[in-house]
This record gives sequence, C-alpha cells and structure tokens, in this order.
Amino acid sequence: MKFSSKIEKCSLSPMRKFAAIAERADERGLNIFRLNIGQPDLPTPHTFFDRLQSFHQPVLSYSPSNGLPEYLDAVCHYYHGLGVDLSRGDLLGTTGGSEALQMALSAILDEGDEIVIPEPFYPNYATMTNLTGARVHPLTTSPEEGYRYAVRERVEACINEHTRAIMITNPGNPTGCVLSREELKLMLDIAKEHELFIICDEVYREFVYNGERLMSALQFEGYEENVIVIDSVSKRFSACGARVGALISRNREFLSHCLKWSQMRLSSPTVDQLAAASLYSFTKAYFDEMREEYRARRDTMIRGLRRIRGVICDEPQGAFYVMAALPVDDAEKFQEWLLTEFDDHGDTLMFAAGGPFYATPGKGINEVRMAYVLEKEKLERAMEVLAIAIEQYNSREK
Amino acid sequence: MKFSSKIEKCSLSPMRKFAAIAERADERGLNIFRLNIGQPDLPTPHTFFDRLQSFHQPVLSYSPSNGLPEYLDAVCHYYHGLGVDLSRGDLLGTTGGSEALQMALSAILDEGDEIVIPEPFYPNYATMTNLTGARVHPLTTSPEEGYRYAVRERVEACINEHTRAIMITNPGNPTGCVLSREELKLMLDIAKEHELFIICDEVYREFVYNGERLMSALQFEGYEENVIVIDSVSKRFSACGARVGALISRNREFLSHCLKWSQMRLSSPTVDQLAAASLYSFTKAYFDEMREEYRARRDTMIRGLRRIRGVICDEPQGAFYVMAALPVDDAEKFQEWLLTEFDDHGDTLMFAAGGPFYATPGKGINEVRMAYVLEKEKLERAMEVLAIAIEQYNSREK
Repeated sequence: MKFSSKIEKCSLSPMRKFAAIAERADERGLNIFRLNIGQPDLPTPHTFFDRLQSFHQPVLSYSPSNGLPEYLDAVCHYYHGLGVDLSRGDLLGTTGGSEALQMALSAILDEGDEIVIPEPFYPNYATMTNLTGARVHPLTTSPEEGYRYAVRERVEACINEHTRAIMITNPGNPTGCVLSREELKLMLDIAKEHELFIICDEVYREFVYNGERLMSALQFEGYEENVIVIDSVSKRFSACGARVGALISRNREFLSHCLKWSQMRLSSPTVDQLAAASLYSFTKAYFDEMREEYRARRDTMIRGLRRIRGVICDEPQGAFYVMAALPVDDAEKFQEWLLTEFDDHGDTLMFAAGGPFYATPGKGINEVRMAYVLEKEKLERAMEVLAIAIEQYNSREK
Repeated sequence: MKFSSKIEKCSLSPMRKFAAIAERADERGLNIFRLNIGQPDLPTPHTFFDRLQSFHQPVLSYSPSNGLPEYLDAVCHYYHGLGVDLSRGDLLGTTGGSEALQMALSAILDEGDEIVIPEPFYPNYATMTNLTGARVHPLTTSPEEGYRYAVRERVEACINEHTRAIMITNPGNPTGCVLSREELKLMLDIAKEHELFIICDEVYREFVYNGERLMSALQFEGYEENVIVIDSVSKRFSACGARVGALISRNREFLSHCLKWSQMRLSSPTVDQLAAASLYSFTKAYFDEMREEYRARRDTMIRGLRRIRGVICDEPQGAFYVMAALPVDDAEKFQEWLLTEFDDHGDTLMFAAGGPFYATPGKGINEVRMAYVLEKEKLERAMEVLAIAIEQYNSREK
C-alpha cells in the first residue's frame, strides 16, 4: 500500500523517542528525572475543575466552529489587559495551540513554498510544514551566540521567491530566547517589507524572567495584514490536557480561510472551552507567583549546568527550557546510555536530544533541551546526576 | 497576501451557510425547525458528567498521543461485543471522528491522487481531501435509485491509476443508505483487488432501523491491510461536544504514519476521553431505546414527505437523515425564501441544500438533507410547514 509522500517525510516526536526504553528503566526501579517534555507540574487552578462540575446542560452539543463565545470573550479580555484591543471576529478558538498552528500553515503554504524558521525550533513545526507540502527554510543560530537570530541581513538571506511566511516562537522553545522590543519590530518590518505572514507562537508569553514587559506582536500597529498569533491555555495555566488555544489575526481574509478548517472539524471540545474561559479570571498576581517559581527553577538549573566543564549555555530569558551544548559526542547515544547503563544511587535523567530541533542535517548533535518543570530540589539533584554522568560517559569512552 | 491553493479550493460548510439569515429570522420572532445540522437532541447519558466531576488529579496534563488507555480499552470492549477482537495497538484515540478522517486522508493522499466517494456525501470529506492536494472522484447515485452504489461495474469505472482509496459512510450521511452484508463485502473485495484503502465511516453504526444486524467492515476477515474505520462517541451517545473519536485499522504501517499526526498535536482532550470511556459501559438496552426513538422520528418524517406531491425519497434504513428531491427549482433559493419571505403561523424550517453534497457540478440542486433530530410532534409540524411552503413557493413563481 502506498502512503502520502508528505507523511513519509515526517518523523515521530523526538521528545517521545526514548519512552519505551525509559519504561524498562522504570521497571528496573530507576528514578528518572524527566526533563524531556514541557509538561508543567504546577496544579491546574481549581476554577477549571469547578467550571467542569457546574456544567448542567442536558445535551453536550457542538460549540460554534469559531469557538464558544464565553471563551472568545475571555481571551479578548485578557488581551485588553495587555493593551491589545481584540473583538470576537479577530480570533478563532482552537483545539490547543497545535491546531492553531496547523490551521495557519494549511491556509498559507502550498507545495514548493518555504517558511523561514530560526533553528533550533519546536520539531512539530517541521511535521506541520511537511504535511502542507512546503519546506522549512532554517535560519541557523548557535549556542555560542545564545541562539539569537533577529539580524536583518541574516533573516533576509533566508527569504527567496518561494517564501510565504516567517515563524518565530517568542519566548523561544527550545532556546528560551526572548526578543527585545527592537528585535521583534525588526522581524515584523522584514515580514511587512517582503509581504510575508509572520506567525508568532506566543504560548510562553507569561514566562519572561528578566523584568521585561510582556510583549506580543499584536501590540505593534501597522502590521495587521501580516501578524498571526498562536496562543494557548496549556502552559499559562498548567492545563495542557484541556486542548484549548487560539488563532489570532486582524487579517480577516486569513481568518476566513481558517474558518473553513474550523467548520471542517465542527467544533473544539465544549466543556474545556467553558472551563478555559474561567481561567482567564486570574489576575496578575497568579502569573507573578508562577513566574517567580519558574525563575527560581531556571536559576537552579543554570547554576548546576555552569558547574559542568564544557557545557555551553546562555541564561534563558523566557519559556521553561534550557538549550545547551554538552561535552559529549552525541546526545542521543548519551541518552540511551543514561537509560540503559548508568545510574547514580538509582537516579538518572531524560532530556530531548538536540538534533531534531534543527532542519539542517548534522546540527545540534551534542545539544539537548531540558525543561525545568520539576521542583528546585529535584532539578538540583538532576544537574548533579548529569555532571556525574557526563564524566563517567566520557571516561568510559576513552 | 497569497493563500494556499488548497484552502482556496475549500468552501465554508453548507450546513452553516444560512446561519446569519436564520439569526435575523429568529430576531423577527419566527420559530425555525432546524433540520440542517446533525446535532441529536437526546440527553447525554449522565455518566459522562459524573465522570467529569470525579476527575481529581491536581494537574490536567496531556494524555498519551495515541489516546488515553482507559478510553482505548473501552472502545476495544465495545468492539468485542460486536464480535471484533481489537487491542490498543489497533486504534488511535482522536479528537472526534473528524480528526480521524483528517489523519487517514493525510496519511494516504498526495497531490494528484484520487479518492472514490459515492455522492451525495458529507461535504467535509471534500474539504479534507482538498487540503491534501488530492481530489474526490465521485461515484454518482440518484434519489430515483435510493442512492445505492455498491455495483461492481459502477465502482470500478471510477478507479484509475491515481486512485488510492475508496471512502464509504455506512450507514450513510446524507442518504441513510445501509449496505447489505453482500454489498459491504463487494466494496471490500474491490478495494482489496485494486490494492486500495477503504475508509469506512461508521459513526452512525447504532442507527439502523430495519432489523438488520449491526455491521462493521472490521467483522470481515482478509481485509486487514485495506480497512480503516472511523468511529466517534458523538452521535452514538449524543455527545458531539466531547470531540472524542477513534481511528481503527489492523494495518500497523498505516497507524504508525497516523501516529506522527497524533504526536504532532500532542494529545486529545484528557477529561473528555475519560468521560467518553465511561459511556461505553452502556448496554444494548440503551441503544435499543435510542434506535426506537429515531425509528419513530424517521417514520414521522417519511409519512409527512410522502404526502407532498413531487417529493422523491426512499425510506432511509440508517443514520438520522433523509435525503430527498423536492419539487422546487433550487433548494438554496427555496431555503433563502423560507427564511426571508415565508412563514406559516410563525413557523418555518431549515435543511441543508443538496448541491454541496455532490462533487459533480450541477447535481443535487433540488435535493435537501433533513436531520430528524427533533421530537416527533415537531417533525410532524415541520413536514406540514414544508408542504405549505412548497405550494406557496411554486405558485408564487408562476
């Protein structure tokens, strides 16, 4: 039987690649610090579950394809707090940020088209792009320069007659890189000058640590035709399993094409949208507290990493990941060794190996992404274990 | 700004086309019998909401990409009751049957490929197919022959070197057509002989009225490589807003490609899968009662339609739709007139106009799909209103 050439180009998730080997390590009684998946451990605010419980309609019917009005209004209200005026018609409710990305890419990209994405990037971007028949044109960055990319000449060198869009993650996954106001404006300017869409994945917006103001591409005027924002309650409210996101743009023609996708899949989950709407009643204090917790975790992880000779990493300013080059030959081999041949007093760890975060073959082989989604004490111990493991791994090889 | 040629080929949902005009009619105080959308009115079983309320994990985390084990096991158990042995590895949990369809088509179809679908068909099939770059090759049927299509010569006449799959809806939406055991086997044989996938959308499986045994393509042996089944809790348990479905196939290579899509969107909604699993504790008595209710509704609608001169329709044997040719020039014009110029004692009605259910241009212009998802008394009155409306509409034109 023949399969689509597009799906053949896609891969399974690198974050889940070692799941089976890890399961066997679990069975052997190992304690694994799982830093491979961006699943926050903070409790989901109780208001979410309260809203689930107070759902008393007799029929669980489809919600409107463009999103439940209560949820759309809650998102508009949240953006109002950021100084961004939105109305219901400026957004679509989506089944997670993931679906918002799929919708946006489907509406824009054709066979043979290109989308510029700074690498390393979230690997699912490549899967989503492949499924449209287009390809990712990577804008390569490096750990030595803190993975920064907002330099006009470098961005423009990636743009050609096939380019239809630029995609940025801000704050960055996996890099934690946060664009300054000037850098973000530069990216928007480049998109506008070249008549490109700029897709801004801002799901980590509340996770910014160095006292900068929160920044959304929607706060800039004059880019209404170009800017597409991806949003989600998953990380912001520790509600990944709700699958509630949003696709936001003031380009009404773009949104009307995306509405075809919305109608095609009928609706997003009804009760999750209602419950997600209730989350947006949270105030600044909630985000401040969460941010402090993650900042402390970041500091713990970075402190641990800086004690290991040969590690290259900048302090990430946002999201909840550290991308780092490790002094090992190959992060995937190292990961396998960590799960099959190593332990320190019963402890070992998992990360996401760096290679699949790059579109350029051979890049990122010795890099890893680690999510600081565990308590500080666990992160501290995980970094100790990492230090011991690197030493053993490298002496074993000599 | 340039959009994807694929999305440009797609249309907004014909079922939702008259929503704005209907809203204005609502505002004028009209009572509209809404027969345009397949949203059952029966209460969702309470066990669903009970399970939502008993969710007590502190973090609402992603569920596994391939589906929550509890839900997968519940589906396997349900199929076991149909005499079909399935294990977790034979299916993926999906965000509604809609996502299962998207996944299957994405995994199979390339630019320039064709999929054979008997027409009239569910219009979202065309949107999903267009987004892959492939095209629908319609196998045309007609109201005069009860929309039946399972005839070897007619099916094979649609197969060429571009064909990759056949898609059938059984019981049929919009036609209510149910394949006999022999007809279903014939369709499977044709798929196998031509090395094609056969995608069987069986979401209306429990809605079969003429005493036939429930039939699934999975009950036939020898077609393991070819058969893909689409399933959902939406119609079966009146739980459309849960967005919980399944993609089932014994072709492991096919499922492994689809798992890439599953991982790309991370997970389906977690609490909805848990609650959906609880629905499968329902027994035959639940389905029997539901079926009796819909059978009575079908009979009411058909009785009403047979009183109208010039209507062509067969008694549908399954699902909850009647597809009928009306003695009007154009069902869309008639629909608009019904909402803007007509009422009978304050009543009017909506249906889905037939044209968009066909891929062949010009077909189905005077046909309509009506969902019998209202109580019998309402359906009876709706058919009276339709009779009066047709007469007024046609004399108005003379």
